[in-house]
Amino acid sequence: MAEASANSRLEVFSDGVFAIAMTLLIIDVKLPSAASFASTAELWRALQHLAPSVFAFVLSFGIILITWVNHHATLELINRSSASFIYANGFLLLTVVFVPFPTGLLGAFLLTDHAAPAVVLYNATLAAQAIGWILLTSAALNDQLTMDERSASTMRESRRHGYFAFALYSIFSITALWLPIAIAVAATLSWIFWLALGIRWKNRVSDR
Amino acid sequence: MAEASANSRLEVFSDGVFAIAMTLLIIDVKLPSAASFASTAELWRALQHLAPSVFAFVLSFGIILITWVNHHATLELINRSSASFIYANGFLLLTVVFVPFPTGLLGAFLLTDHAAPAVVLYNATLAAQAIGWILLTSAALNDQLTMDERSASTMRESRRHGYFAFALYSIFSITALWLPIAIAVAATLSWIFWLALGIRWKNRVSDR
Amino acid sequence: MAEASANSRLEVFSDGVFAIAMTLLIIDVKLPSAASFASTAELWRALQHLAPSVFAFVLSFGIILITWVNHHATLELINRSSASFIYANGFLLLTVVFVPFPTGLLGAFLLTDHAAPAVVLYNATLAAQAIGWILLTSAALNDQLTMDERSASTMRESRRHGYFAFALYSIFSITALWLPIAIAVAATLSWIFWLALGIRWKNRVSDR
Amino acid sequence: MAEASANSRLEVFSDGVFAIAMTLLIIDVKLPSAASFASTAELWRALQHLAPSVFAFVLSFGIILITWVNHHATLELINRSSASFIYANGFLLLTVVFVPFPTGLLGAFLLTDHAAPAVVLYNATLAAQAIGWILLTSAALNDQLTMDERSASTMRESRRHGYFAFALYSIFSITALWLPIAIAVAATLSWIFWLALGIRWKNRVSDR
Repeated sequence: MAEASANSRLEVFSDGVFAIAMTLLIIDVKLPSAASFASTAELWRALQHLAPSVFAFVLSFGIILITWVNHHATLELINRSSASFIYANGFLLLTVVFVPFPTGLLGAFLLTDHAAPAVVLYNATLAAQAIGWILLTSAALNDQLTMDERSASTMRESRRHGYFAFALYSIFSITALWLPIAIAVAATLSWIFWLALGIRWKNRVSDR
Repeated sequence: MAEASANSRLEVFSDGVFAIAMTLLIIDVKLPSAASFASTAELWRALQHLAPSVFAFVLSFGIILITWVNHHATLELINRSSASFIYANGFLLLTVVFVPFPTGLLGAFLLTDHAAPAVVLYNATLAAQAIGWILLTSAALNDQLTMDERSASTMRESRRHGYFAFALYSIFSITALWLPIAIAVAATLSWIFWLALGIRWKNRVSDR
Repeated sequence: MAEASANSRLEVFSDGVFAIAMTLLIIDVKLPSAASFASTAELWRALQHLAPSVFAFVLSFGIILITWVNHHATLELINRSSASFIYANGFLLLTVVFVPFPTGLLGAFLLTDHAAPAVVLYNATLAAQAIGWILLTSAALNDQLTMDERSASTMRESRRHGYFAFALYSIFSITALWLPIAIAVAATLSWIFWLALGIRWKNRVSDR
Repeated sequence: MAEASANSRLEVFSDGVFAIAMTLLIIDVKLPSAASFASTAELWRALQHLAPSVFAFVLSFGIILITWVNHHATLELINRSSASFIYANGFLLLTVVFVPFPTGLLGAFLLTDHAAPAVVLYNATLAAQAIGWILLTSAALNDQLTMDERSASTMRESRRHGYFAFALYSIFSITALWLPIAIAVAATLSWIFWLALGIRWKNRVSDR
């Protein structure tokens, strides 16, 4: 029971971090503070220039939401926690909390001539998040926190996805130096894959 | 029990997002950062110019609070969750998290000659929120998450309110291009209706 | 059990709002963003000018913390909720979320010639918070949410404190037009009284 | 059971404050808002200048995470709460919420000629946090909130760590007036020690 309570606080704390990181994303969607507008048409144009910011906001919100759902499903596979699991979880949360920074860059520079740094950093953050995922699943497997063999097997599958995600976003991050827009599109599409995977996984866990 | 825990994390996470979105609204209520004031009377005048921001803050706080109460009552009708319900909930939260942006615009432009874009976007956000509501209730009904027939019937009623809200705020959003102030008043009044509906609904759920 | 769960979500949601409002206060403690410093001594002087902001931060943090403890003790007296209680709670949270705004003003203007508006608004916010308290306790008493007669008696005492606080901070708010510094000191001292009262109350509830 | 619920709300509230303080740290990692960039190379250089901000973000995130883990382990040692414990906890949270301010200073000034004030204030905040820790553990011991003698013994050890941390960061804070960079390095290294201690402690509590 002490351990149930341990995981419960870990969940509440992690949920809080996910929820706040998602909500803070909206702070970067705003008009330049010193802006003044001579006509309503000019204000509409200024709002249109926010389109990349809104796109970056929706993309990052979606990514953190999908990560939360997967985190949620992962914690249902274990019934204890350990120090290394807690700190691996902390590293994962660090990469989630960092997301608003490359999101702001993406919104500000995606449609400019200087898109490369934003797309490179955005994908590097996703690669770091994949490392967090590998650490988290490895800690769960090494410390034998999973409830049963079936859970351990799902956890190993989740770790394989982590390795794949790390390779994918590392390649994306480097390639974005030359092809930022193409990589931004590819990274966006990749999350449709993770979304489908998350839904399939959630349904499998629920079916038990 | 696994499912009870699933909904419990969904509730904590959603509550966190609602709570943060409501609290972030206050960030846009502030004096221009570069402002300097020659006299106390001048500072009072500057504070009076914040009146539309305070109005927008109170309106959006009230709207998110009412949405939270209704969300709360809706989750009491179900005893399981599903992948599509979780992602429909995520979309609803996206529209809630977006609220601070049109709220800031409303505060900044409501009493200027350029009120139309702010009121259009504000009502478009409410229309998007209605879509989130339709998706959420549809997911609950399609995946048969409701506890009993009585709950399913209340859920269907809630979905009808979602369709009505979508129609209402879509019309408001378009009409605001020509009549921004009148629509701002109408949208404000509409929430007295939702408040009354929420109270009636909450009392009905509590009566069981 | 449905009602136990209702109050549990009300608590989690309220705790979230209190926690975020307290944490957002730190955002206003910062150096002017455009500042540049020729020497370390100049940076020290700029930091000294933040003293009123730090004072306002600590004062408001303390006030919200004490309000949270009292809110906590109040919710322990009831075992059900009602629509009017939930919306009274929402109004109380609105006044809590508003606190960062007058806190920022207090930090910016307390030691200037224009302290009056900041101190007036700060005390007006506390008066509004007292109204929230009166509404909350009245809703609990009118809807008979308290667990037993002893709880109802404590709740009535709490409501009397609400009336007293409303009178006190209303008078403070008006008097601050002429005597802002004296009222700032008096308002700060008043919270030592509320702190003592909160400790006494908490101990009484715990003793049962 | 009333007391179990009391500690549960204390935990949720504290978790919320920790989670938000950690997440708000990212707000200070951003490009100057008025910046414009003539070339991609110039944007890369501006991003490189954010390195101290990213370092300060990661350091403070790590410190608050470790503090949260220790807080978590401490609350597992007690099964009741008291007014003085709640307010000692509130003081500890105040010092946690304050962390973003010296973190922002550290990021802005660490690699400039004016590093001293930032490093002094950073370590002073850590010394204040140690006071919070001493107050928290003392309240738990004085009010006899610990579950058994073994818990009380762990709590006393934790208090000794608090005294040590207070002495360490007080000395660091003063020495930083003359040797800011060396102290910044030493303070960073000190958290590897606290991390190791936290892991050892967590494992010991889990072993029971």
